[in-house]
Amino acid sequence: MFALLGTVLDYFGVRPRRAVIVEGDRIRAVVGIEELGEFGVDETYGGEGYLILPGFINAHTHVAMAKFRGLGEDLPTEEWLEKIIWPMEREWTGKEIRKWAEVGIGEAIANGSTTINDHYFFAEEIAKIARKFGIRAFIGQTVMDEVDFPHASPEKGFRFFKRWKGKDGLVRPTLAPHATNTVSFELLKELGEFDDEAVIHIHLAQSRAEVMDVKRRYGLSPVELLSRAGILGKRLIGVHGVYLGKDDFKTLSRAGSTLVHCPTSNAKLEGKTVDLRELLGIGLNVALGNDSPNPTGILDPFLEMRTAGIVANITTGRAHSVPARELFGMATISGARALNIKAGLIRPDYLADLVLLNAKSPWFTPQGNLYSHIVYSARGSDIELVVVNGRIVYENGVFPLTGKTLEELSGVGA
Amino acid sequence: MFALLGTVLDYFGVRPRRAVIVEGDRIRAVVGIEELGEFGVDETYGGEGYLILPGFINAHTHVAMAKFRGLGEDLPTEEWLEKIIWPMEREWTGKEIRKWAEVGIGEAIANGSTTINDHYFFAEEIAKIARKFGIRAFIGQTVMDEVDFPHASPEKGFRFFKRWKGKDGLVRPTLAPHATNTVSFELLKELGEFDDEAVIHIHLAQSRAEVMDVKRRYGLSPVELLSRAGILGKRLIGVHGVYLGKDDFKTLSRAGSTLVHCPTSNAKLEGKTVDLRELLGIGLNVALGNDSPNPTGILDPFLEMRTAGIVANITTGRAHSVPARELFGMATISGARALNIKAGLIRPDYLADLVLLNAKSPWFTPQGNLYSHIVYSARGSDIELVVVNGRIVYENGVFPLTGKTLEELSGVGA
Repeated sequence: MFALLGTVLDYFGVRPRRAVIVEGDRIRAVVGIEELGEFGVDETYGGEGYLILPGFINAHTHVAMAKFRGLGEDLPTEEWLEKIIWPMEREWTGKEIRKWAEVGIGEAIANGSTTINDHYFFAEEIAKIARKFGIRAFIGQTVMDEVDFPHASPEKGFRFFKRWKGKDGLVRPTLAPHATNTVSFELLKELGEFDDEAVIHIHLAQSRAEVMDVKRRYGLSPVELLSRAGILGKRLIGVHGVYLGKDDFKTLSRAGSTLVHCPTSNAKLEGKTVDLRELLGIGLNVALGNDSPNPTGILDPFLEMRTAGIVANITTGRAHSVPARELFGMATISGARALNIKAGLIRPDYLADLVLLNAKSPWFTPQGNLYSHIVYSARGSDIELVVVNGRIVYENGVFPLTGKTLEELSGVGA
Repeated sequence: MFALLGTVLDYFGVRPRRAVIVEGDRIRAVVGIEELGEFGVDETYGGEGYLILPGFINAHTHVAMAKFRGLGEDLPTEEWLEKIIWPMEREWTGKEIRKWAEVGIGEAIANGSTTINDHYFFAEEIAKIARKFGIRAFIGQTVMDEVDFPHASPEKGFRFFKRWKGKDGLVRPTLAPHATNTVSFELLKELGEFDDEAVIHIHLAQSRAEVMDVKRRYGLSPVELLSRAGILGKRLIGVHGVYLGKDDFKTLSRAGSTLVHCPTSNAKLEGKTVDLRELLGIGLNVALGNDSPNPTGILDPFLEMRTAGIVANITTGRAHSVPARELFGMATISGARALNIKAGLIRPDYLADLVLLNAKSPWFTPQGNLYSHIVYSARGSDIELVVVNGRIVYENGVFPLTGKTLEELSGVGA
């Protein structure tokens, strides 16, 4: 049993001078710091000047794409994919994937993410690395049957899911059809019927080409296609939605599905993104994703919240269009809701997925509006300690479960 | 004499395994690391895994506004100004300004800025703090004569300029009319005639109200007004330009003036900004500014470059609209050009304004495209050492000229 000490901040408020008591994989209690003595804690972390936040949930990523960081930057999207990304992706091996998954997962943890929702080839290898680092990970094996691409057969996806279902408390398999135009209608249906509880994680209307493909083939919008395939519902996580219409968003919202917003990725690859204000206005559950290190640059949830706020303003032409607290909620409780985990809040009996942030810096001074500071002033580098499922998985540059340091991960690929 | 060791990166290229030799206030030489022995250096910093960059130039800021960080966040612009900012600004005292200038200046340095161009009340006090921390600082006393506001009389501006002109190699006074609608035509003319060499630093078309005011009063655009007042030219630094037209930008460009782009501030306060691609296309010198800690959140030049790239894409609806190297150039050489200092490049005889960045992190892995990493992956927290005018002004959390630590600055105002 240990305790984090500091100001507790979650979507529902700010509580100064608290101790968050962690026992097993759960938060046992959140008490005034003066009551700490009533619990027989072995160790405390933080104290004056620290913030305790729920761990961030990166609701869409491809961690192994760290290998491509910065490559093809400044190329138009189609050239970026065809000249840089796809040729390199065809050459992946399990060993290479493991190396680069370490980079991406280490980076995500060090910057404050306690959960990732990953979608990629060689899911088996990524799952092993996730387990090694101790992050909570939803891992999907990317499948496609309308495109000729290695490492992406539907059989691989089903096999991976079956092998990992119920195997591990922290690493859980998802079903991961690539996108609405690269997977057949039949496969979408099959995925929907395969397992009632499985999270289904799919790229959704990321490009104009995808939307036009689906329209041409079925006369439907991508959301209508998912609906007809019977896979809309609470367990559906659609990513991007850049080219969806208002009706599509309403359909997603009514179905209880989640849209993952990846503003940096959208801005860099499409020059365009959703109107976040509109989505929140219709009550859709919108989670936040870093997408991959290429194009995003860094798996830092703070930069993603900041970018979401800034991009929402430019998209709508309105100042202050989404309150900082809502952006923070997207990166915490909305992700937890999408993945159906009892996380994202700091309350007794919630999963002990927590981060400790050192706020003894000029950019947290003065502390008049902590939600604003978290979104617009903080960076992942302010994080000192990361707890997942009650275990310390990162502390000041070290990943204790692996014995590796942050610096050691920079040697990969050299 | 000391040397920084690492990969040298400036706007004109990337040179691995170099030693940058610093002597007095200048870069004496940039040589292969194996030639280091030929120079009798007393000390070396950096080495394998480090990048040496020109110090960043924050071409528009109000450091003391750190006091207002996060306040009024999520309020509409007019309410933000009228309810939060202005009432607090009327209450400023010299003592309070000094405290908060320390926060803003310390924050700027620690995140890699070696030069600031500040525009605010109590310029005398800000100049003293800049000198104490050793940053290169262009300081202007904000003046207004069309608005009834304390601390902003034209006499204060002229007096401050005269007192500091030629007084200090690092801290240099500018003339700082507030904006085109808060200063009379006569005062603009007077400022233009006051000193031929003075940098003139002015807010320019930041809001619709400003543009409408000028139109109503003079029948001119803000740039036409500056032209008629005789203050366009190389020494004019106009800030924001959100509501200028293409002809205005061409006029600025022909005059050799600089526009300072502050994308975070524009996005947060106006929901709108300039089309950066267009400005660069017509050859206008565009520098980069953080503006103040409220609304920007943090004085981090890396976040500002990143935001500039992302916002440019959303503004134009185009992916990859401004290359990473151009964004980096805005924050280095374009700022140096605006302020007419021999900085922003790493070459012999340039001012020794340098930063040392620790690139031994996952987010700098692999190192295929360093310009992209600098803009989209790095954060000010990657900076370990900052050199201004040949002196070390920051090293791993400490400001050696003051004896203060970064953490100590967080106690201000508590």
